[in-house]
Amino acid sequence: MSDFETLVKNRRSAMKFVKDVEITERELSEMFSLTKFAPSAFNLQHAHYIVVKNPEIKNKLYEAANKQYKVLTSSAVILVLGNTNAYRDVGPIHEGLLNLGVMSKQEYDMTVESVLIFYEERGEPFQREEAIRNASLSAMLFMLIAKDKGWDTCPMIGFDPVEVGRILNIPESYVPAMMIAIGQEDTSSQRPRGYRKPVGEFVSYDTF
Amino acid sequence: MSDFETLVKNRRSAMKFVKDVEITERELSEMFSLTKFAPSAFNLQHAHYIVVKNPEIKNKLYEAANKQYKVLTSSAVILVLGNTNAYRDVGPIHEGLLNLGVMSKQEYDMTVESVLIFYEERGEPFQREEAIRNASLSAMLFMLIAKDKGWDTCPMIGFDPVEVGRILNIPESYVPAMMIAIGQEDTSSQRPRGYRKPVGEFVSYDTF
Repeated sequence: MSDFETLVKNRRSAMKFVKDVEITERELSEMFSLTKFAPSAFNLQHAHYIVVKNPEIKNKLYEAANKQYKVLTSSAVILVLGNTNAYRDVGPIHEGLLNLGVMSKQEYDMTVESVLIFYEERGEPFQREEAIRNASLSAMLFMLIAKDKGWDTCPMIGFDPVEVGRILNIPESYVPAMMIAIGQEDTSSQRPRGYRKPVGEFVSYDTF
Repeated sequence: MSDFETLVKNRRSAMKFVKDVEITERELSEMFSLTKFAPSAFNLQHAHYIVVKNPEIKNKLYEAANKQYKVLTSSAVILVLGNTNAYRDVGPIHEGLLNLGVMSKQEYDMTVESVLIFYEERGEPFQREEAIRNASLSAMLFMLIAKDKGWDTCPMIGFDPVEVGRILNIPESYVPAMMIAIGQEDTSSQRPRGYRKPVGEFVSYDTF
């Protein structure tokens, strides 16, 4: 078993955090500087993170998240957002490869045009799903990185997205994909890991 | 830099695969037996994988995926689906903890009832988003596990989901969240990694 396998098995959603543990911006920044390597469709990097450490704002998020105690005791609450308009930045994002000469001008123009058409043709529901999909890929990587650096996380969906949007000033074009509480797990009352389906139940070959 | 950091940096979306490299069911099964540790909302395990190695079916997927060459040259094409009805299995999934005495009968009943209400109240768009969100968390973990075991992957969204559903007999209640091509990357014409935004551009503190 490699180190990575241990990491995968040790990462569990924390149910309870040790109170008053500080996480610094520097520590978070180190995590995010690795999180940026997450894949995203057409490298559009739809994910945006809002880190909340301020106790007053955390308290408001606690109210908006059905008063889940772990929001209060976490070291920070993180909102993972997806940008539904990420495709509009396809030009600037690929300019680097153009300037390096890795992409020809013709290839660059084709990429920009085809990505714009791809998202515009599929419309708003698809743009919203892309925001959620790509933010979720990024969020999974973030949680593993956090664990590797000694931090526990819990992804959460039980919150009022409209209220959270209001509290954090989230623009209309960003979807709250999930909330992640981060801190040091209080393992004193930790339960056995929840049941996982055997591989044969969630993997099939050649057809459903 | 820990091993995991190297893994994160080495995992890149493969643009081209070495042809005729076989991946065995045994190798895939080992990957999935770790992938099952991905988190999911209420442990509902929304993700389902269809692995396609059969050349005829791969060829049909190639047609449904805008004739992207990597579909043909990959060792397998994997459809990652999300089950929009996953919440209906909340009872059976939590029975283990009930039977172990970790959950009381009262807590079990409350959990089952509250999860059913949670999904039913929010309705179909939310159930679909949950399917995509949780399948994507699982997919990111799968791609890292694959890389750790020496395989390259490429997540793909450029395919016709209706056509793919028809080819693979996917039930209406499952959403194709993404396609993943897996194989050994042909790095002969590998480009520099695409531009990544600096941390300050995708992370903000306390408000957007």
